[in-house]
Amino acid sequence: MSALLGIDYGGTHTKLLLVDGTDGDGPILARESVRTAGVDELGQEVRRFVADRPVAQFAMTVAGTFDAGTGVVRRSVNMPWLDGTAPAHRVSEAIDVPGSAVQDGIATAVGEATLGAGRGAEDVFVIALGTGIAGAHIVGGEVRAGAHGGAGEVGHIAIAGEHRCSCGQTGCLETWIGGGQLGRRWAEQRGSGAAAVSTAHEVVLAAEAGDEPAQVVLRNAGQALAKALLQVSAMLDPAVVVVGGGVARSPQWTVHPAFDTARRDATFHRLPEMRLAELGVWAGAHGAVLAAAHELA
Amino acid sequence: MSALLGIDYGGTHTKLLLVDGTDGDGPILARESVRTAGVDELGQEVRRFVADRPVAQFAMTVAGTFDAGTGVVRRSVNMPWLDGTAPAHRVSEAIDVPGSAVQDGIATAVGEATLGAGRGAEDVFVIALGTGIAGAHIVGGEVRAGAHGGAGEVGHIAIAGEHRCSCGQTGCLETWIGGGQLGRRWAEQRGSGAAAVSTAHEVVLAAEAGDEPAQVVLRNAGQALAKALLQVSAMLDPAVVVVGGGVARSPQWTVHPAFDTARRDATFHRLPEMRLAELGVWAGAHGAVLAAAHELA
Repeated sequence: MSALLGIDYGGTHTKLLLVDGTDGDGPILARESVRTAGVDELGQEVRRFVADRPVAQFAMTVAGTFDAGTGVVRRSVNMPWLDGTAPAHRVSEAIDVPGSAVQDGIATAVGEATLGAGRGAEDVFVIALGTGIAGAHIVGGEVRAGAHGGAGEVGHIAIAGEHRCSCGQTGCLETWIGGGQLGRRWAEQRGSGAAAVSTAHEVVLAAEAGDEPAQVVLRNAGQALAKALLQVSAMLDPAVVVVGGGVARSPQWTVHPAFDTARRDATFHRLPEMRLAELGVWAGAHGAVLAAAHELA
Repeated sequence: MSALLGIDYGGTHTKLLLVDGTDGDGPILARESVRTAGVDELGQEVRRFVADRPVAQFAMTVAGTFDAGTGVVRRSVNMPWLDGTAPAHRVSEAIDVPGSAVQDGIATAVGEATLGAGRGAEDVFVIALGTGIAGAHIVGGEVRAGAHGGAGEVGHIAIAGEHRCSCGQTGCLETWIGGGQLGRRWAEQRGSGAAAVSTAHEVVLAAEAGDEPAQVVLRNAGQALAKALLQVSAMLDPAVVVVGGGVARSPQWTVHPAFDTARRDATFHRLPEMRLAELGVWAGAHGAVLAAAHELA
């Protein structure tokens, strides 16, 4: 019996996932998280992981842009050693299994939409609240990428305010709830200046300890997310919206209030079912397995 | 040789359009705009219009919601005499040609996207600036309707401000550039209170005559539209955006400045080609002909 392999090759950790069968949704045969190394070491790591189980196809995530035909990475901000290389091609040679690359955000979204919180729904929008914010509309298991591959940029729709976003605009969703921005909002709220930039996790810990400025920041973040949910509903009308990512790991402070506010503020909208992501850090590896299944089909 | 018939059954005028062949994009054999009458009179009118030319299929627009299976109108705000009737079915009996109903906004959008300003593009978003604002994303000639038929509501994405929208929200695009709202914005700008509500056309005439408050209102309208264009680009990434409708008939005041502002304010966006609608009041009839072609295929 053949299996599929998903490799989620991240900046600090790499997830290896072996799934039975060739549909991508079979039982998990093995999974392992290892510290990320260079591509040659990865090849050895994967060979050890797979042992002598027969693998029909694999896919591996790339955190950056790459050429769809050759798999050559154009630019990886977080993993610059990949620039100009074809990592999936090299792993393929190392393990003697055909494989391809898949963009990491797309793998994560397809994983959650198909096998995670979106499973069973035909039309799912996934929002990943990380350092930045990623979005993807998955219909029938396929990402709607847009005419130039730029669709789903929910992090950069205008919500309110004058905070400068990493994208160059002001007032984007990301300025309110991006993991890289919550610390700045907290510093402003305390009047402590830009010197003291905390992580999203530190803001949540402070809010839990009763820090009022932190609670205000997270309340504002939830309100901004609620507005984005209404915009997604108005423009795309998905059946399900799945919210995940690091910031969603403490959903009581941001995501759950956002779901409640969206329900309260909806007027003409046919609201989607709003769900928390389920696969956590394994979503990308599952998405890679699905990409491998897709290649094989 | 067979032909297709499109009927755009509007609140005041009805457009009849006969197109050669059965693909929907053939040469126009005849077209006529008549004053709208009841469905029985419409049947006679169409019989006269068609004369004895052989029609393979027709479609007619319905300004409202209807059951897709039976064609029975649930609710037509502007043509309440249609509620509970199946107008396409009755016209079909009158002219002895098979036919179906198509939602008027969808027909207009598909007409513009396929045969008007969007022709040749695979992926088109159409914005109709009428009394209200309609939007539709057409990919490969098909409308992306969403999971509950509610997608494309670009008129009700939040832009800014606290103006109450007809949809119950505040700050929607429609509060800035909806034809039914421009007069109100002008009255506010002049400080003349809500008593003096002008039409969109009157606001444009005043701006052309040098009225400064009217010019401010139209400038604000263009700015709001520019923000909406950037949101459409961020979320859907279409290849082409087509802007039409009554308010777009004086594009120098709103639509052209909006295109310029969107180009100036774009950051990460892969902007669509932005075009003015071309088919004017005939877009709906062309869309109905395409719907007839689709039924036949």
